[in-house]
Amino acid sequence: MAIVYNFSAGPAVMPKEVLEKVQRELLSYKNSGMSVMEISHRSSLFADIQKNAEGNLRKLMNIPDEYDVLFLQGGATLQFTMAPMNLAINKKKIDFVDTGHWAQRAIEEARLVDGIEVTQITSGADSKYTSLPEIDDSLQEDADYVHITLNNTIEGTAFKIVPTFKEVPIIGDMSSNILGQRYNVTDFGMIYAGAQKNIGPAGLTVVIIRHDLVEKSPDLPAMLSYKKLVAKNSTLNTPPVFAIYCAGLVFEWLLAQGGVDEMEKRNRKKSKLLYDYLDSSSVFQSPVAIESRSLTNIPFVTGNAELDKQFIALANDNNLVGLKGHRLVGGMRASLYNAFPIEGVEKLITVMEKFELEHKEVD
Amino acid sequence: MAIVYNFSAGPAVMPKEVLEKVQRELLSYKNSGMSVMEISHRSSLFADIQKNAEGNLRKLMNIPDEYDVLFLQGGATLQFTMAPMNLAINKKKIDFVDTGHWAQRAIEEARLVDGIEVTQITSGADSKYTSLPEIDDSLQEDADYVHITLNNTIEGTAFKIVPTFKEVPIIGDMSSNILGQRYNVTDFGMIYAGAQKNIGPAGLTVVIIRHDLVEKSPDLPAMLSYKKLVAKNSTLNTPPVFAIYCAGLVFEWLLAQGGVDEMEKRNRKKSKLLYDYLDSSSVFQSPVAIESRSLTNIPFVTGNAELDKQFIALANDNNLVGLKGHRLVGGMRASLYNAFPIEGVEKLITVMEKFELEHKEVD
Repeated sequence: MAIVYNFSAGPAVMPKEVLEKVQRELLSYKNSGMSVMEISHRSSLFADIQKNAEGNLRKLMNIPDEYDVLFLQGGATLQFTMAPMNLAINKKKIDFVDTGHWAQRAIEEARLVDGIEVTQITSGADSKYTSLPEIDDSLQEDADYVHITLNNTIEGTAFKIVPTFKEVPIIGDMSSNILGQRYNVTDFGMIYAGAQKNIGPAGLTVVIIRHDLVEKSPDLPAMLSYKKLVAKNSTLNTPPVFAIYCAGLVFEWLLAQGGVDEMEKRNRKKSKLLYDYLDSSSVFQSPVAIESRSLTNIPFVTGNAELDKQFIALANDNNLVGLKGHRLVGGMRASLYNAFPIEGVEKLITVMEKFELEHKEVD
Repeated sequence: MAIVYNFSAGPAVMPKEVLEKVQRELLSYKNSGMSVMEISHRSSLFADIQKNAEGNLRKLMNIPDEYDVLFLQGGATLQFTMAPMNLAINKKKIDFVDTGHWAQRAIEEARLVDGIEVTQITSGADSKYTSLPEIDDSLQEDADYVHITLNNTIEGTAFKIVPTFKEVPIIGDMSSNILGQRYNVTDFGMIYAGAQKNIGPAGLTVVIIRHDLVEKSPDLPAMLSYKKLVAKNSTLNTPPVFAIYCAGLVFEWLLAQGGVDEMEKRNRKKSKLLYDYLDSSSVFQSPVAIESRSLTNIPFVTGNAELDKQFIALANDNNLVGLKGHRLVGGMRASLYNAFPIEGVEKLITVMEKFELEHKEVD
């Protein structure tokens, strides 16, 4: 069958070589006679999977020893609750940078944790989140941490440089651009990311957290406690074995491709191709301010909901799927994660050019 | 290679036909050109997967309409926290039946939820949990619910009949025998189960909950709120797509095999074979009282830790894996879940007989 290009925002395209390896060894992992889904999480087979996955993630992101790596469940949304419960414990105050939908979801969830004071120190609302708000360290008030959504999947914005806030740690939601561009882990107190974009299948959340922050956390229910989860090396109960195995294969693939710097180079190239076309098109445009644009999530519109719909149908007919924009903003969105090939961007632009030509003639 | 029989307590053996189907369609689900791991959780492809999985689970367990079915993450351990937060809200009291390790873990976690009074109304501690405690409805005190671990994976005990407690709902942990024997859903306020034993791969938790209990729950963080998760039909955030897909295939397989009653028949046959052998052996024995014995988890011992070790090594040499007992109790354990074939029990007994013969000669 024809090649399908999957632009979904997540769950999203995975490296073909990884999927082929999963398929090859699905019935018998390492000649054990058992599927990787059937092996015990207390077996040496799984211990090696987890150890290698963590080791390779540390290599890819240059994670120093003073940071713990956790493989959890519940998605970024559970982190919206866990971070406040575990880390907003001295001042019981969190400062939020409001960059759009997911930042607001993090704010809403923090407000549901008893006794936490939430301050929105800056917001992109004035620009309808089409550009990132200005941040400087004078903004930071008196908080346990500042929360930032590094890449805004729906709005298509991303911080290239991480702001600093004196001594206050930054907790970063990196769900949609982890491993897709270079950040310094040491700029953060904690980083978290749902796996289903750049890491692997849905059902896994990666948390990278500075050990001194873990140690201070209170006596919480086990599955909500970074301290207890770190103490049990993410196997406090049965971890999502298959998802960790897939993530491990993706990390190996990333290393073989040249790591995060190579991914950033490719993602810049892919996104530049699309942004350049959008900026020259008379039918399609990017609603996002140039300096705020994401490398991984690129929303675009015609400015006419009926035309948007027609284009999405045409794209589908051309095996370009998952282009429908998020229900909150409409239009289209191309998510160009690490595993998304440049050929898919080229094909998208070809189809957009065709559509543009037809709709120029109509005008 | 030789057939391997996997006696692991979980993650555990899955039906071969299911694994083969997963393998066949891993690169292109329903000719979509995308792996099931790559499809959006908002796509109609996934909506159908979830709808069919829920429908088939309802058929298998005769789940009435007034019960909601949730596909969650975090394992049974997160339910130890969520159930108290959501359901112990009027009297703020929970009664627990102490049947061993996992019941105690549920008790410990309930104690970590603010303002909950926990009462252990009965305990199997006197018998070292080798038999189930007596229960009658006079035991129930004045609680929001009574918590029971239906099948005790480590101790090898299981309730065949669900006790009643007048008007007080029962919350049942059915992680290790859900779908392996018949229970009436209507005997429970809520049932929960980690998937990694009788349902599918680790990383999925099934919750079946009476709707009136859901409606009363307070305004909790989204991922900890049954009410909010029910309102969003388990897709409040990205669900574990692949695990739900696999669970759906297992449910289809169970229906094709004849459903829960057929599974119970087979599990009775498999476990009887092993219990009969154990009760006649001069080397191996079951530590569990006959009337309390589990159909799915069968611990056994020689009474000599060195012999246990030798037997486990011999079993491994014969491709019988995962027989090492839980670290808390030692010895051996054979977990005979739905997907475990009777041929594996027969082979185990053959190897046990051989071992017995050798050790009779030594004596």
